Amino acid sequence: MVYIQKRLRLPAVRRGFHLITDLLVAELPELERLRVGTAHFFIQHTSASLSINENADPTVRVDFEAYFNRAVPENAPYFRHTQEGPDDMPAHLKAAMLGHAVSVPITNGELALGTWQGIYLGEHRNQGGRRWVVATLMGAE
Amino acid sequence: MVYIQKRLRLPAVRRGFHLITDLLVAELPELERLRVGTAHFFIQHTSASLSINENADPTVRVDFEAYFNRAVPENAPYFRHTQEGPDDMPAHLKAAMLGHAVSVPITNGELALGTWQGIYLGEHRNQGGRRWVVATLMGAE
Amino acid sequence: MVYIQKRLRLPAVRRGFHLITDLLVAELPELERLRVGTAHFFIQHTSASLSINENADPTVRVDFEAYFNRAVPENAPYFRHTQEGPDDMPAHLKAAMLGHAVSVPITNGELALGTWQGIYLGEHRNQGGRRWVVATLMGAE
Repeated sequence: MVYIQKRLRLPAVRRGFHLITDLLVAELPELERLRVGTAHFFIQHTSASLSINENADPTVRVDFEAYFNRAVPENAPYFRHTQEGPDDMPAHLKAAMLGHAVSVPITNGELALGTWQGIYLGEHRNQGGRRWVVATLMGAE
Repeated sequence: MVYIQKRLRLPAVRRGFHLITDLLVAELPELERLRVGTAHFFIQHTSASLSINENADPTVRVDFEAYFNRAVPENAPYFRHTQEGPDDMPAHLKAAMLGHAVSVPITNGELALGTWQGIYLGEHRNQGGRRWVVATLMGAE
Repeated sequence: MVYIQKRLRLPAVRRGFHLITDLLVAELPELERLRVGTAHFFIQHTSASLSINENADPTVRVDFEAYFNRAVPENAPYFRHTQEGPDDMPAHLKAAMLGHAVSVPITNGELALGTWQGIYLGEHRNQGGRRWVVATLMGAE
């Protein structure tokens, strides 16, 4: 039985959705040791998200940003948490809707993602800076 | 300590929300071996979802479909990812909002769902076809 | 390798979002035994949610309630599941959007939450009563 945990620092990215599967896997050569298990990725922030969606056509990620900007508007007149700028409260709401973590099965040393699946970093602030992700690999050798 | 993983093929279903708890449990007689643990169900697609909600009145699932069809409209004029049909981009967004996986505690060989909880397959395409789910059971005997 | 599971009964709270990190941790002194692992919190209900967001300014939680009340309106004319009151169907939808569970890494005997992160109980019914959460701690000593 194996438990491996690493805290990974992501590069700063612009606001929007970014495919980070390869970046995460490159930091986790230990994946190879696990025959079966799960990989848990947890973002230690409240205005950025982790989710899973299409890894091919980049316009999917553009449409994600466009949709969520409409679904969670800036400057809603009823927002009270406004001191950190108009992008802050919407960022918290988007993070809650999309999620703070993804869990992916591990099969024969690899993430068992579907053919079209990739891991998205949702950066919901205009200037989010670098983000921390805790990766926990659990399973059997 | 036990790690069991199975890849399950779901039957094709029509667009909407479908209760699949019994179907999943029937494929996992190994659940009985675990005294305590978790069951992780992961859908290997980006236009279908797994979530948990009411297992009793079927109108809840009808209302889920009606609500999400309004919250994520087809043919939004700003969508750019439109080549796979008007139901495709909304399907990706619904999948991201609802989630690609559910984790359920295991207690004494059974899923520790609440009395009214069931696992929903959200089929967000008009013709989604059969879907793959990876089930990973982890725990102690 | 350790697997610890406890069923926790939360106090009844008013409709809205409530920070429950300290309450959960106080019930789990066993956390100290785990050097590395994950803590899985699962709510056994379909009209309340668990999510993670800002633990500091309480107006974030007020804005969460205001936003989700607008995003998921009561008395939508197309709702068919209306017998349990106007707050019931929206509560199911909010619970599905926010989630039924959170998983948090454990590092050196503590939840590895980010500085600004806390665990939110979303109580989406007007009179939700006391709620059950199953906590499962998994990891290595």
